[in-house]
Amino acid sequence: MVDILHRVGAIAPLDDFYRAVATPEGLAGWWTTDTVGKSEVGEKLAFRFGDLGGFDMEILELDPAGHVRWRVVEGPPEWIGTEIDWRFEQRDDYTIVLFKHEGWKEPVEFMHHCSTKWGSYLLSLRELVETGRGRPAPHDVKVADFD
Amino acid sequence: MVDILHRVGAIAPLDDFYRAVATPEGLAGWWTTDTVGKSEVGEKLAFRFGDLGGFDMEILELDPAGHVRWRVVEGPPEWIGTEIDWRFEQRDDYTIVLFKHEGWKEPVEFMHHCSTKWGSYLLSLRELVETGRGRPAPHDVKVADFD
Repeated sequence: MVDILHRVGAIAPLDDFYRAVATPEGLAGWWTTDTVGKSEVGEKLAFRFGDLGGFDMEILELDPAGHVRWRVVEGPPEWIGTEIDWRFEQRDDYTIVLFKHEGWKEPVEFMHHCSTKWGSYLLSLRELVETGRGRPAPHDVKVADFD
Repeated sequence: MVDILHRVGAIAPLDDFYRAVATPEGLAGWWTTDTVGKSEVGEKLAFRFGDLGGFDMEILELDPAGHVRWRVVEGPPEWIGTEIDWRFEQRDDYTIVLFKHEGWKEPVEFMHHCSTKWGSYLLSLRELVETGRGRPAPHDVKVADFD
């Protein structure tokens, strides 16, 4: 099992980051504008990226004190069954986001791509919280040939 | 053992990416302007980031066909002994870069940070190759509180 790890932070209240990850409106502001569903434990969120497809996530945990967790139930075969874990921590003026996409079976080339792309989207999340405007798909930063 | 993985690509000759990683001048264009040393197998390169410190890498492999490998011999304790592996592959018009920073003992918080920061620097590398201008430190994209 191999994981994708990331960490970003900004001078902002924890709740701003939490809402950006825990609500469809927040997610549409930095990941993909095509985000639909209900963000409640046991419910699902659907994220689509035009012709590239997308992912459905089941919500496993939603704790405003600083924890969100999803399980991938629909998407590319390499993603199915993997889990995405978000931790938010207030440290002085900063909120720190610790991100983990865990449970990949093999470190395939697609995992390398997803790691870079997650990093880029987390900087979009940071930008949203800092400036009020992120770079969700289809306005996302391109990293290679298949995005 | 846990690894940091990334993948970027651009419509550019493999040799442009290779030179950006295999020569001090190239590295100074996307990672840190303060890069000194000799890029030959068995020799060392020193990368410095002002007050933040830096890293010394021993060059383990330099193959213009598409492979560069370094061992970290000086730097933060978590980095010492880890290895950084670069693969370059030409695929039609694109050159694809597969990056691995391997041999981390534990998935500590600092590793999360380095993963995001590597992703951001690889986009700087991509930008250098595409446009002739990267974002090396001290002009790098900030991701959190300690960069």
